[in-house]
Amino acid sequence: MLIVQKYGGSSVANAERIRRVARRIVETSRQGNDVVVVVSAMGDTTDELINLVGEVTESPPEREMDMLLSTGEQISIALLAMAIKDLGVKVVSLTGAQTGILTDNVHTKAKILKVNTNRLQAELAEGKIIVVAGFQGVNATNDITTLGRGGSDTTAVALAAALQASVCEIYTDVDGVFTTDPRLVSEARKLDFITYDEMLELAHLGAVVLHPRSVELAKLYNLSIHVRSSFNFNPGTVIKEVGEVEKSLIVTGVAYDLNVAKIGLFDVPDQPGIAWRIFKTLADENINVDMIVQSFMRDARNDISFTVSKTDLKRSLAVIEHIKDKINIKDYSFDDEVAKVSIVGAGMMSNPGVAALMFEALAEENINIEMISTSEIKVSCVIKAKETEKAVKSLHKKFNLAVQQTGQVINA
Amino acid sequence: MLIVQKYGGSSVANAERIRRVARRIVETSRQGNDVVVVVSAMGDTTDELINLVGEVTESPPEREMDMLLSTGEQISIALLAMAIKDLGVKVVSLTGAQTGILTDNVHTKAKILKVNTNRLQAELAEGKIIVVAGFQGVNATNDITTLGRGGSDTTAVALAAALQASVCEIYTDVDGVFTTDPRLVSEARKLDFITYDEMLELAHLGAVVLHPRSVELAKLYNLSIHVRSSFNFNPGTVIKEVGEVEKSLIVTGVAYDLNVAKIGLFDVPDQPGIAWRIFKTLADENINVDMIVQSFMRDARNDISFTVSKTDLKRSLAVIEHIKDKINIKDYSFDDEVAKVSIVGAGMMSNPGVAALMFEALAEENINIEMISTSEIKVSCVIKAKETEKAVKSLHKKFNLAVQQTGQVINA
Repeated sequence: MLIVQKYGGSSVANAERIRRVARRIVETSRQGNDVVVVVSAMGDTTDELINLVGEVTESPPEREMDMLLSTGEQISIALLAMAIKDLGVKVVSLTGAQTGILTDNVHTKAKILKVNTNRLQAELAEGKIIVVAGFQGVNATNDITTLGRGGSDTTAVALAAALQASVCEIYTDVDGVFTTDPRLVSEARKLDFITYDEMLELAHLGAVVLHPRSVELAKLYNLSIHVRSSFNFNPGTVIKEVGEVEKSLIVTGVAYDLNVAKIGLFDVPDQPGIAWRIFKTLADENINVDMIVQSFMRDARNDISFTVSKTDLKRSLAVIEHIKDKINIKDYSFDDEVAKVSIVGAGMMSNPGVAALMFEALAEENINIEMISTSEIKVSCVIKAKETEKAVKSLHKKFNLAVQQTGQVINA
Repeated sequence: MLIVQKYGGSSVANAERIRRVARRIVETSRQGNDVVVVVSAMGDTTDELINLVGEVTESPPEREMDMLLSTGEQISIALLAMAIKDLGVKVVSLTGAQTGILTDNVHTKAKILKVNTNRLQAELAEGKIIVVAGFQGVNATNDITTLGRGGSDTTAVALAAALQASVCEIYTDVDGVFTTDPRLVSEARKLDFITYDEMLELAHLGAVVLHPRSVELAKLYNLSIHVRSSFNFNPGTVIKEVGEVEKSLIVTGVAYDLNVAKIGLFDVPDQPGIAWRIFKTLADENINVDMIVQSFMRDARNDISFTVSKTDLKRSLAVIEHIKDKINIKDYSFDDEVAKVSIVGAGMMSNPGVAALMFEALAEENINIEMISTSEIKVSCVIKAKETEKAVKSLHKKFNLAVQQTGQVINA
């Protein structure tokens, strides 16, 4: 059996953890499996490198950022390969380039175009464990690229797909994917299975266990991902497509996101193209707008509210200040003490009334809903940040998530 | 004019120094030169990585050491390229592999076999400054190799040779090559010129300004090396072949080496193959034996003395303890409080009596000579370490090195 395992930065944060991970990998190998391991940079390495950059320049070229940051994973793979060799097992470490991970040319957030598996196949044929540097690849001109946030997850899934691995195991510091954040709700329950789409919504909603791009890729190749803890041997959560016979849950989990800020624009002229100009300008600045709500027309003028990540708030306000007069916006406001709570579930599609149930749960707790947005498999509400815990707990309870669900039952 | 510049680890030890070096490079470029820069790892990076290895394993595979240590230079080139770009100049950083530095397969001390200059030529044609990671290359199977101690010097000379550069400038933290260590002898004088062979002897003798392998390579390609300070704009020392007309000095410099330990083997059987067995065993352990002195035969038994670097003493003694009984050595001793002082000069070849003058100088100071070894252009003596300074001063004076020499005059 060919197994791809991915270990994140916290799993290899120091020498002791590297040796522990090595033992786990060797154990998997000794059970008769071919093992390809993907590793991230050790703990804080990447942050330290970024600090160094700050001392050198304010505007680093992205190509050189990739040249720099890719060293973090290269350090990890060398040390992990040493630890594995120390256990008497054949092993080889490979950079992204050596692995044959070919990407496009978009430095700092490159996309994998192709995995040339020649070297991987050759090393596996020699009975070696392969330790691959996550997060990185090489473009057509042989320049090092990096895949952006969560890139190591994507590397692992891409390798698993290219090598037709039996499973892709993503090791992390939690036991798997939960019905909600266990730090907030003690009744939170680990899910045994979750669909790709549900996982995508949860990842996008701030319950970051796995990077969305890796889930998209796994969905594309119909590859199972097993998210589990590197600190124990418990089974984690398997992400896979729900089969025809399998009933999906109406609500699988409750997510929340505190990295949210709300911006309100008042008295925006009700003319075609105004919304486009606002959001195009924000997009040009690489600011990701999440929810957008436009109120009813009033004297041919609208109020428009939208959310951005809190980290983008300052830049967003600068953009608005810049275009305010040009597009005739009277005034604007912002609030960075808000949060987004969401319910996610593939079964929602065929179940009207789920959103209403969510609003009911929040109303019972006297929580005011400031914005609402829905998709086929999720409902999100913006509320005051200080009410997040109360909201998540009430939703977890309302949808009875502490108990293993088996069908379309809804406690309404 | 195409100039290759090499900056060592101390020249790029922190962000401020990186920015300073960047200004110097850009200045060279703005004077109308094509510039290829070779950089070492920042200050203590390599030591820090080696410490990390020590926490993971006692016996790291050499391939993985190269994978690990090569990240040090990769960090330097990225940061230096950022600093150069910040000054508004086109620049690209290249790893050893990207540069086209092809080496043999001897990990941790690989030799450069070939430099494929395609990419270098292409980047230069686009008007870019090129920043190359020193110390590293890639073997035929695309694995990263490193060139061992002083490898960045070798990279610089190899690139200068391959690109037929006008000059190879080696930047360091001293002003050039001196007649002896200026910290020991205040009259020490910076040499304007020195021959390859003299520089080789000086480098081997502990006056480490430049790595011997880089000097050998420069000699092979008859390439001038300019050793100079990165902290000022003074001309340094040019290493080149002495022309027919140029008279070489009898004695160019006085070197000393404190990293020396002496080992004495007593009553070694005078049988063929015994010396071979001793030194073969040491060589197998990668222990470099420097001077060897065998005393006259006495009852078919010899005393053999030799020197190793102080850092190899412990391992050397372990080897001897191990083979002692097998080859019937009665006893042995060691002394790690010794030093080697040497005089070097290409003119020595045609001047008998130089060695005698050296012994005279030492005798005048009442310094006992424990071992002697000579080559065509150098004489070395092992003395007590505590007499090093006195010995170097007396030799520097005896050969009148504080004064610019012009011919074959010798103050005997």
